[in-house]
Amino acid sequence: MEETKFLTDIEIAQNNEMEHIKTIAAKLNINEDDLEYYGKYKAKLPLSFIDEEKVAQNNLILVTAMTPTPAGEGKTTTSIGLTEGLNKIGKKTTVVLREPSLGPVFGIKGGAAGGGYAQVVPMEDINLHFTGDFSAVEKANNLLSALIDNNIQSKTRNLGIDPRTIVWKRVMDMNDRALRQITIGLGGTANGIPREDGFNITPASEVMAILCMAKDMEDLKTKLGNIFIGFTFDKKPIYARDLKAEDAMAILLKDAIKPNLVQTLEENPAIIHGGPFANIAQGTNTIIATKMGLSLSDYVVTEAGFGADLGAEKFLNIKCVSAGLKPKAVVLVATIRALRHHGGAKKDEYNTPSLERVEKGFENLEKHIENCRKFGLNPVVAINAFPSDTDAEVLWIKDKCKEMGVQAIVAEGWAHGGDGMVDLANAVVTEVESGQNKFEGLYDWNLPVKEKIDKIAKEIYGATEVIYSKRAKLDLKRIARLGLEHLPICMAKTQKSFSDNDKLLGRPKDFSVNVREFEYAVGAGFIIPILGKMMRMPGLPAVPSSEGMTIDNTGKISGLS
Amino acid sequence: MEETKFLTDIEIAQNNEMEHIKTIAAKLNINEDDLEYYGKYKAKLPLSFIDEEKVAQNNLILVTAMTPTPAGEGKTTTSIGLTEGLNKIGKKTTVVLREPSLGPVFGIKGGAAGGGYAQVVPMEDINLHFTGDFSAVEKANNLLSALIDNNIQSKTRNLGIDPRTIVWKRVMDMNDRALRQITIGLGGTANGIPREDGFNITPASEVMAILCMAKDMEDLKTKLGNIFIGFTFDKKPIYARDLKAEDAMAILLKDAIKPNLVQTLEENPAIIHGGPFANIAQGTNTIIATKMGLSLSDYVVTEAGFGADLGAEKFLNIKCVSAGLKPKAVVLVATIRALRHHGGAKKDEYNTPSLERVEKGFENLEKHIENCRKFGLNPVVAINAFPSDTDAEVLWIKDKCKEMGVQAIVAEGWAHGGDGMVDLANAVVTEVESGQNKFEGLYDWNLPVKEKIDKIAKEIYGATEVIYSKRAKLDLKRIARLGLEHLPICMAKTQKSFSDNDKLLGRPKDFSVNVREFEYAVGAGFIIPILGKMMRMPGLPAVPSSEGMTIDNTGKISGLS
Repeated sequence: MEETKFLTDIEIAQNNEMEHIKTIAAKLNINEDDLEYYGKYKAKLPLSFIDEEKVAQNNLILVTAMTPTPAGEGKTTTSIGLTEGLNKIGKKTTVVLREPSLGPVFGIKGGAAGGGYAQVVPMEDINLHFTGDFSAVEKANNLLSALIDNNIQSKTRNLGIDPRTIVWKRVMDMNDRALRQITIGLGGTANGIPREDGFNITPASEVMAILCMAKDMEDLKTKLGNIFIGFTFDKKPIYARDLKAEDAMAILLKDAIKPNLVQTLEENPAIIHGGPFANIAQGTNTIIATKMGLSLSDYVVTEAGFGADLGAEKFLNIKCVSAGLKPKAVVLVATIRALRHHGGAKKDEYNTPSLERVEKGFENLEKHIENCRKFGLNPVVAINAFPSDTDAEVLWIKDKCKEMGVQAIVAEGWAHGGDGMVDLANAVVTEVESGQNKFEGLYDWNLPVKEKIDKIAKEIYGATEVIYSKRAKLDLKRIARLGLEHLPICMAKTQKSFSDNDKLLGRPKDFSVNVREFEYAVGAGFIIPILGKMMRMPGLPAVPSSEGMTIDNTGKISGLS
Repeated sequence: MEETKFLTDIEIAQNNEMEHIKTIAAKLNINEDDLEYYGKYKAKLPLSFIDEEKVAQNNLILVTAMTPTPAGEGKTTTSIGLTEGLNKIGKKTTVVLREPSLGPVFGIKGGAAGGGYAQVVPMEDINLHFTGDFSAVEKANNLLSALIDNNIQSKTRNLGIDPRTIVWKRVMDMNDRALRQITIGLGGTANGIPREDGFNITPASEVMAILCMAKDMEDLKTKLGNIFIGFTFDKKPIYARDLKAEDAMAILLKDAIKPNLVQTLEENPAIIHGGPFANIAQGTNTIIATKMGLSLSDYVVTEAGFGADLGAEKFLNIKCVSAGLKPKAVVLVATIRALRHHGGAKKDEYNTPSLERVEKGFENLEKHIENCRKFGLNPVVAINAFPSDTDAEVLWIKDKCKEMGVQAIVAEGWAHGGDGMVDLANAVVTEVESGQNKFEGLYDWNLPVKEKIDKIAKEIYGATEVIYSKRAKLDLKRIARLGLEHLPICMAKTQKSFSDNDKLLGRPKDFSVNVREFEYAVGAGFIIPILGKMMRMPGLPAVPSSEGMTIDNTGKISGLS
């Protein structure tokens, strides 16, 4: 594979000849007539395929990661590669992933459909409009906004919403910092009532979180109706259902609720559906998509955003508990680079071999391993390979993991696709077939809010205490008054540390975490303790990647990385 | 058909059993492999199907209308019905229409996919996200906005754009009056430079106008690059190409550029593509779609927005001249209701028979007939039937038209589909086969701007003079300075009167029109004289139609009318 080493992701994807999506569907025993095509390489699947018996019986594998460097440690690439590997060793496997957001594609980030020889395709479409799900979420979100402002403007049917209390924001899938904070309704009586507002990026919409938590169309409508908007002047809460918005919003989501089938580079099935923010929402694909995958294949590989303290914790405590899903194995992605980072390497030293730093940084991975076990799951560590890795570093990690009773396997999906992932696949199958993994949620949803937060902060993060600001204490009273105490906790915290302080790497000790305030996603069904300032609308960089993109008269795209 | 009389449009559409879109495509000799499906009932068509020889040889029929009442006179319904009628008499015909905008569906207006037994289906999809074209236009528009604000914020690559001069606005396909006038970039240095902005509804985007004027991907890119944004502090014009935006925008439009194939209720082919505003843009489907229709069938029926003074004039002088299209016949839609309106009936009297008012109101239709002849086209009048029509009124109109050498035919597409349109179809074929219609544009694009405007105002509207405001005169100088004088004219005028005054019904005489200012769509390629305040972002009504909509667990929608 030497000669192809320098190809970009899009070049690898474009050099790959895709199968017609009906061929991929056939591998899942899906009849062509049941597919809703979106071109030749994408299709939507009907919800009627979900079979709860198979969901319970088949094998769900979660891919999560140690605390990442800013570049990320390759969870998506590992998930896709592992799927190739599992299929290679004869396990009928589907990868089930989130949909990437379009906005960041024109910024720095580039695509989010895996990388190298572990990608889902067609990568251009998946990274751009795909099948229109994000656009539908955006429209549903913004219809509610328009209905709110229309009601405030109404003379005859005014609900008395106090514009100063409205927490519902508009959204746009675009990196557009100028829309973060705006004033709307200017220009006189015809244009509404002036008020402050702002746009979040579309994946940060609660509508996206709801889509990912919904069990079916009825449940979707109920959840949409439960969206909390703000208060009236006499302090009564107002929900989307008070504006009779939920059916119209659900109509806009009628196709978005159906999971999307695509393929991996090795022509294995991939279901890509839903894309909620990982920092202020649950950050995983839809419950419907995960169940769809489990209904159609023996193994499902899925991933949860950010490190395991955030992504896996939410995946397990919110999504799995809510949907009755029981993962049979967890893959914890680590990189030598990230271990060096936690061992003290600066950004320009990430690629400099250092056994000492790896040894020091291992405490981070160790804590994540311990955490997985708190859910009844013994993880497999995947060392996502980089050219700068040395044998000494790899061996040391393998030994150290072995001491802990954990298999650590080098994963070479990026460079070699499924061929580079056979060992990891075998290790995962061993773990699944051991029958030792018995998933259990970390806390009972019915515990008091503070106790639930304590469990996460102390047992997962390793904090000694949780401090609540004055504002947070007031919010807790409001949560009680609104009857939301039974909801699970969706932590909003930096992904860069176990603590709420970016700077504390490795395995911080003797720290407290600070809850500054609470938000509540009543529709999606969780309480969000805010432990730091969360970015909900990215900006473009000095040189937007849009400038380097081209499209020719045949529709071929370059420069989308 | 007595028992179905009271069905709503959506009920009629849902009771209709659709053919798989491959069956419709087969009627156009399209191979299944060449289709890009969007579900079973929608498909995109490759641009390679366009065959200029067939475009020149086949028959293009324009459906336009007399000056309408606020309810509209049924151009879309007539276009679809006529297509059914033409197919019934053995002419292989495709209807080529604009895509409806999603925003108004949740307001008052309801759908825009025809009505009664003359509809295109699936009507819910066509009225909602359809194949994502509007969303793609919206994203392309808003990417440019984000790039503009990002450049203003840039320290290292600043082009010196003066924020006070920026004419490029963001867009959203939503009736949302609160976004008409906003302040963006608030909240400190991280959020950009504060400035005034606003959202238009997506069909009002110049990107939509460009999509509809583009000949292919290369042409699309060139036109996108030519979008005028504003001036630098030292008064240099800035275009989208200065931000290197055109390729990224074109990438977002890579699927939107392909026309969409659907079907009529009688399973005839319908191509629906592009939807620019009729009041500040050219208001017709894409050039690509019209050429696609002509490449695939002997007859193409298409429509142009609003009355013939606006829609047909722009269609003929801008679109047809630009694309080299030569319509072979024009259908002028009239209703007895509209004739009564122009004869003095108030809104609650539209359904009250009155031969006197019809006789008086006829002068409006007469002027439109005369106008069609100025383009070398003798129209056929379609009297779109309403229950309140009386034989006396209909007979009088028919006689009057006959005196003018024009056939007037009662069109019953709404009530009877193709069966109600056979007479009209025969009349159109007679007109086409007469060979008498020799289309010619009204003016030479190379004339001075004022002379082009004079031609339209005096010959089409019947004005005695054109008055330019001080601002308009300054704009004319700027147009000269920017080198745009060779562009055709895209009038922005009320659709309610031949004049620029809503109140002047019938056939106004001795009036002048006032050009208040100019805009220029440099990308789309036209100069826009503004003759009145144009609405570019509608609002929702007191009772939004969203409140009456429902969707059940099977995905069936009700209340979308």
